Amino acid sequence: MSELKRLRDDLRLFAAERDWDQYHSPKNLAIALSVEAAELLEPFQWLSEPDSSGLPPGDRARVEEEIADVLLYLVRLADKLDVDLVAAANRKMQLNAAKYPIGKARGKSTKYTNL
Amino acid sequence: MSELKRLRDDLRLFAAERDWDQYHSPKNLAIALSVEAAELLEPFQWLSEPDSSGLPPGDRARVEEEIADVLLYLVRLADKLDVDLVAAANRKMQLNAAKYPIGKARGKSTKYTNL
Amino acid sequence: MSELKRLRDDLRLFAAERDWDQYHSPKNLAIALSVEAAELLEPFQWLSEPDSSGLPPGDRARVEEEIADVLLYLVRLADKLDVDLVAAANRKMQLNAAKYPIGKARGKSTKYTNL
Amino acid sequence: MSELKRLRDDLRLFAAERDWDQYHSPKNLAIALSVEAAELLEPFQWLSEPDSSGLPPGDRARVEEEIADVLLYLVRLADKLDVDLVAAANRKMQLNAAKYPIGKARGKSTKYTNL
Repeated sequence: MSELKRLRDDLRLFAAERDWDQYHSPKNLAIALSVEAAELLEPFQWLSEPDSSGLPPGDRARVEEEIADVLLYLVRLADKLDVDLVAAANRKMQLNAAKYPIGKARGKSTKYTNL
Repeated sequence: MSELKRLRDDLRLFAAERDWDQYHSPKNLAIALSVEAAELLEPFQWLSEPDSSGLPPGDRARVEEEIADVLLYLVRLADKLDVDLVAAANRKMQLNAAKYPIGKARGKSTKYTNL
Repeated sequence: MSELKRLRDDLRLFAAERDWDQYHSPKNLAIALSVEAAELLEPFQWLSEPDSSGLPPGDRARVEEEIADVLLYLVRLADKLDVDLVAAANRKMQLNAAKYPIGKARGKSTKYTNL
Repeated sequence: MSELKRLRDDLRLFAAERDWDQYHSPKNLAIALSVEAAELLEPFQWLSEPDSSGLPPGDRARVEEEIADVLLYLVRLADKLDVDLVAAANRKMQLNAAKYPIGKARGKSTKYTNL
């Protein structure tokens, strides 16, 4: 079984044991995901870009936890909406390759609508 | 090779071909992740919780794309910070199990600090 | 002097006294604003809509602080970008009135693109 | 009447005319605020800090609209929660002055918990 399906099943069990499915509407899970993503952003806010690669150990441990939270809520939300995460990611990468052809996008951070 | 490691490698190649590593500081990737998480939240904002399970087809397709974007930036950020996503998620689930023991947390949405 | 201009001037002095203008790029202020907005959202995430009107006292005090943080970063960002907040808000309300004519929008939460 | 109270009253009328109070729970308004804050952050995500001070004209106009949206939702949320925005901001500035004394905080972006 794939690693993401295992996480999905672990999260299903975790919620069922606590009777939490009643709170896990897609709306609420999308809020929780967005809140965790902002908590992940928080320790980077005043750092320069180069410094953001070398977090101090305390922030580093916290960032790992926030990264995990984002993944857990994402897996849970995808499960509730019946979205196959890896298939969706592969489709999106193909879309991105079409939006950002190498010749046009190389070395530029411009949005595809302005390329 | 695991599915997340494959995504990681695909994203490395995608960025290298476009010379985009210069933009992919952890700070910028954390911003991008947070922006995508909010775009994922957007179609749910005025829906009731029950309605959030049955999105209209147009919103459904968009939500799938935003879910993919969140996963892609998460994989890329974890790669840049050298975080093992699945190991971090498993550690976090163990922490959550300790914070929310079944007996105390069952049927409640209360934060662990108030249980 | 208007209340927002007073806040703007207080924030200018606060930053100058601490030599913080070096950190207050529009990019960093926009990150900080977004992080504070998510912290404001956090206590609401598992509440039903009706319950969100009656926060427990501890959450209430925290929500007031987060609301203040959002306003302070918004005033500071608008100052750095030389945007007149009240003029921008008035213009946006006129745009919204055109996007959501009373006859069409009454009693519906539909986005204007689908009205 | 102060400028923020005028905005508050304009927004009350706008919602009443459209029968939108039913959607304007504090929870939903906090989501909307957070979504708008992320839309405001979006055009800055790949810019360097210095470049974030000189947005191209199209992005500049959009940023002004997003700033306005954040203010409008903030005023509306504060109204629904019966929070006095300016009083809350003044209290928070006093708290910040205590957390970040000039002597300790000068020239540093460190969080107060680590000063």
